[in-house]
Amino acid sequence: MKFTRFIANSSIHTGVKEKGIIRVIKGDIFGAWEYTGQTFSQGEVKSIAPLEPNQIIGIGANFVSNVEDLPEQFPEIPVFFFKPTSSVIGPEDEIIIPEGIKEVKFESELAIVIGKEAKNVPESDVLDYVFGYTVGNDVTAPQFFHQDGHWTIGKSFDTFTPLGPVIETVLDPFNVKVKAKLNDVEKQNSATELMIIPIRKMVSYLTKVMTLKPGDVILTGSPVGAELVGAGDVIECEIKEIGNLRNTFVTAKEGARAY
Amino acid sequence: MKFTRFIANSSIHTGVKEKGIIRVIKGDIFGAWEYTGQTFSQGEVKSIAPLEPNQIIGIGANFVSNVEDLPEQFPEIPVFFFKPTSSVIGPEDEIIIPEGIKEVKFESELAIVIGKEAKNVPESDVLDYVFGYTVGNDVTAPQFFHQDGHWTIGKSFDTFTPLGPVIETVLDPFNVKVKAKLNDVEKQNSATELMIIPIRKMVSYLTKVMTLKPGDVILTGSPVGAELVGAGDVIECEIKEIGNLRNTFVTAKEGARAY
Repeated sequence: MKFTRFIANSSIHTGVKEKGIIRVIKGDIFGAWEYTGQTFSQGEVKSIAPLEPNQIIGIGANFVSNVEDLPEQFPEIPVFFFKPTSSVIGPEDEIIIPEGIKEVKFESELAIVIGKEAKNVPESDVLDYVFGYTVGNDVTAPQFFHQDGHWTIGKSFDTFTPLGPVIETVLDPFNVKVKAKLNDVEKQNSATELMIIPIRKMVSYLTKVMTLKPGDVILTGSPVGAELVGAGDVIECEIKEIGNLRNTFVTAKEGARAY
Repeated sequence: MKFTRFIANSSIHTGVKEKGIIRVIKGDIFGAWEYTGQTFSQGEVKSIAPLEPNQIIGIGANFVSNVEDLPEQFPEIPVFFFKPTSSVIGPEDEIIIPEGIKEVKFESELAIVIGKEAKNVPESDVLDYVFGYTVGNDVTAPQFFHQDGHWTIGKSFDTFTPLGPVIETVLDPFNVKVKAKLNDVEKQNSATELMIIPIRKMVSYLTKVMTLKPGDVILTGSPVGAELVGAGDVIECEIKEIGNLRNTFVTAKEGARAY
């Protein structure tokens, strides 16, 4: 089932996409919801991010190039980071390059959407807490990384977390490829089996630290191949079974320079 | 005006504290609200964290010992970090030390509560976007800091962000002292003029990166004097004009060890 959010007739709606038709729903996608009876065709609507995340958690440097490169031991403390929910944009929205810099990095990722409160979940049960999956672009301005290793500012600018086009609830996350095309040229294309910390371990670990909540989004890491790009470049992040998330990079009109 | 949240008759209420009486309100503290007419005395209620934050942003290493130690130049990129909203607890709640370690660090802080959407706010206007102030304890398990400098896991455990006891909306943040008492012995006591990046600069900088939202909480850094503590220790974080935030450290019953 593909959940979508969109603007039609100047209002934000939630719906389910079926065979090219969007059936409007009302209620809480993580709880009780029902069809309203209203429908739209894709051409009548402007898609937006498929949810307003509760929180966004990312994992750093989580892909190898080849299965043989997977480490035998998992890192003791994985590199996790938060991104602000204010950084979320939807399909076709513009990614704004902060003032003072010319390039930012794209990173195509499989994004997990948590559907149920999750604490101390064993690896075997992790998928029971997953509502569905979307595509994320973990845009980053490494120029704003702190020299002591803190990534927060470099990952927190408005527009730096495109999500979409839909949340797919029926997906085998161990059998998809995470891709990116930059100006129509393929730059990333890796199976999720190349994750250093695989999904079950990643989510289980997080739930041993913190209580995950419905609407939490976990960006599961980006394949080898991400690049710095500039204004005018067009990025398409894609997982075939979910869809294509296309955004264009533009120059900031106003500033990121505080001092 | 002192906003409080509390449990009475098994329900969560929001109220305003006035001369020892809590007057219950309904509505949105950041928008429209009104008194219900119901009142409680403090003794009838169990205080909880005065808000459910939208997001929690902290700043690292932001206090010097003496005014003469303040740097002439501000750091180009301040150390900011996020804490999960699931880490929030209220006054008198227990701070749980994760399994596998024996000590964690307390850090008493002045916490800013944002009241209005804020983007590209000049330093001079910052206070217009502040709803009020509470006391925060930025509990940290440095044992879970990643060797490359990422603090996320070490600051993200459930119970690691006590907030309270109230949100005070009438406060001069430039004229308060941030204190902590450990087992009745004073450990921290610094005026906010000892902040390396003062409040106006801090919030203005953040708004040039990201859109702040009502309910965002900014932990403004902790004075010199924070220590590692263990099970049984009692920490009181205090800003006299806001109140005293008291919590006890206890040992985990179940685990933080994921691998």
